[in-house]
Amino acid sequence: MQLDPFAPVAELTRQLIDIPSVSGDEMAIADAVEAALSASPHLEVLRDGNAVVARTSLGRARRVIIAGHLDTVPIKDNVPSTLSDDGTEIVGRGSVDMKAGVAVALSLAVELTDPVHDVTWVFYDLEEVEATRNGLGRVSRNHPEWLEGHFAILGEPTSGVIEGGCNGTLRADVRIGGVAAHSARSWKGVNAIHGAAPLLATLATYTAETLTVDGLDYREGLNAVGIRGGIAGNVVPDECVVTVNYRFAPAWSIEEAQDRLKHIVAGAGLADWDLTFTDLSPGARPGLDDALAADFVRAVTTASGSEPRAKLGWTDVARFGELGIPAVNFGPGDPERAHADDERCPISDIETCRAALAAWLT
Amino acid sequence: MQLDPFAPVAELTRQLIDIPSVSGDEMAIADAVEAALSASPHLEVLRDGNAVVARTSLGRARRVIIAGHLDTVPIKDNVPSTLSDDGTEIVGRGSVDMKAGVAVALSLAVELTDPVHDVTWVFYDLEEVEATRNGLGRVSRNHPEWLEGHFAILGEPTSGVIEGGCNGTLRADVRIGGVAAHSARSWKGVNAIHGAAPLLATLATYTAETLTVDGLDYREGLNAVGIRGGIAGNVVPDECVVTVNYRFAPAWSIEEAQDRLKHIVAGAGLADWDLTFTDLSPGARPGLDDALAADFVRAVTTASGSEPRAKLGWTDVARFGELGIPAVNFGPGDPERAHADDERCPISDIETCRAALAAWLT
Repeated sequence: MQLDPFAPVAELTRQLIDIPSVSGDEMAIADAVEAALSASPHLEVLRDGNAVVARTSLGRARRVIIAGHLDTVPIKDNVPSTLSDDGTEIVGRGSVDMKAGVAVALSLAVELTDPVHDVTWVFYDLEEVEATRNGLGRVSRNHPEWLEGHFAILGEPTSGVIEGGCNGTLRADVRIGGVAAHSARSWKGVNAIHGAAPLLATLATYTAETLTVDGLDYREGLNAVGIRGGIAGNVVPDECVVTVNYRFAPAWSIEEAQDRLKHIVAGAGLADWDLTFTDLSPGARPGLDDALAADFVRAVTTASGSEPRAKLGWTDVARFGELGIPAVNFGPGDPERAHADDERCPISDIETCRAALAAWLT
Repeated sequence: MQLDPFAPVAELTRQLIDIPSVSGDEMAIADAVEAALSASPHLEVLRDGNAVVARTSLGRARRVIIAGHLDTVPIKDNVPSTLSDDGTEIVGRGSVDMKAGVAVALSLAVELTDPVHDVTWVFYDLEEVEATRNGLGRVSRNHPEWLEGHFAILGEPTSGVIEGGCNGTLRADVRIGGVAAHSARSWKGVNAIHGAAPLLATLATYTAETLTVDGLDYREGLNAVGIRGGIAGNVVPDECVVTVNYRFAPAWSIEEAQDRLKHIVAGAGLADWDLTFTDLSPGARPGLDDALAADFVRAVTTASGSEPRAKLGWTDVARFGELGIPAVNFGPGDPERAHADDERCPISDIETCRAALAAWLT
């Protein structure tokens, strides 16, 4: 399968959809993307597994990373692509998540031979599966220098709105201890489930903060997402474990977020407890206070009229956050349509996103 | 295997131990017990499966039921029986739980041809397994008239102390509801685990009562014995289920106990909840305020010097409670030795219990 990166971006989107690339089966599309980029003498093309990186080296003061994943969730009779009856939407697996975004990037990568910032274009695999297999994570481990830059844009669907950075997320198991006893003589024991009451009361009354980071408002969240306790129907339990999920603004490092959670739990007044972190994912700043990013916001606002907003869910932009690179999501398509059986993307979205990025980079 | 019910009670205990009768394999011992009883013209002998019932019909004003189970937990190289080195204890599976108690009953059943109360002697199967298979329960369903009486004694090991009646026990699942949401946007949901906080606080601060019933003190207990909640590490849960176990004094019927628990849970102030009872086991009154039982207490106190006390754990005496018959546990052997690999019963215990029962019945 060949791609014509100089085709109109809607046509290129359909070419990309028509190469099936369910997670784990990205070789054909990665080969096609690599071939399409290799014909451009202004790009250095690199490859790691089924991730393809292409970059300019024009000696610009700033380098921008523009990234998108090549894989999709499983196909549901929606490949090859079709056009909607009214001709305004491209229908097919990956149209939203995120071959339209990939098409915008691939199209600009070959056309913009002289961008105002150096650009590193990243096309990666295995985004729709376990985070440990993620192709962007693999590239950042194998070749961290490939991802050096001052600002990153992930072309995930946002309906053409800039969604900046993301909240971090961590999980901790708070174990409350007790003393087991037969429930017929419960006074000989200490009930660990009863012991969890002050922690649940603390969580129930906790008011999550909203923090402004680089001009965007990040609303936090603190929740018990799991609780378990009990040995048998006739035993006073000696252990109750509450799993707490803290979604924290990118104002905080992982270490600061851990300290904040420990402080809250310590303040609950539990009698016998310990805390173990089970998941630590940093947030990412949006970096929109930087001049380079401010230009980008202006370009998008001019093209689409939409103002940037904070991204609350954790996304791959956090991988840039880990590398110290501010990052935003910006791409065509309604994210609510991602993974849907009738996944479809407005052609106007794709063209608007391409126009905004082109305006910013030239 | 033959039994000699007229042998000294320690010898009869050993004969009973030497007929293996692990739960589900009681036919041989039931046949031997039936044969030993059938030779006595003062007894009417009945049989249901591997349960054997023998009763006098002397026209007495009162009828007493004396019951014991024939089965044991699995044998651990401790059948046939032996004597301890000092000759004071019988060693072997079932010596404590409860072939010594069965020997006392079988010995008196054939010897007491003219007891002061009519007596129904019950020897049953399948006590050491799931309650649904229990032989005493089966007899009470198949032949409730076989268990008619004014007072019941279960010969379970109590070291020769009268342990009267038993607390009832019920379990309920209290389901607390909420609204699921992604934990990155937790304010769109209602956290059901947080919602459980007032219930746990109510249970933690609840002071269980002690109620005096027929002269014995029954200490109650109210405990969460299980809690579960949580869908995934990134979801605000819409359900949390707390399993509550209420151990209630035999002052209360099952219906009264249910009402008491419902009242306590309703008073916790939960926002969205319902309650489902999953286990309902009535308690049993000890009946020691009755003249007949008071005689029994005097006989035991004279024989052993020990005062009666309340039974707190749920036992088969509750099956008599369900039939409206006050009941006590009274038998030889230390209950802590039951099911132990070195299960052993003092011969003096067996003789003391037999003497006390004989004195009361003659």
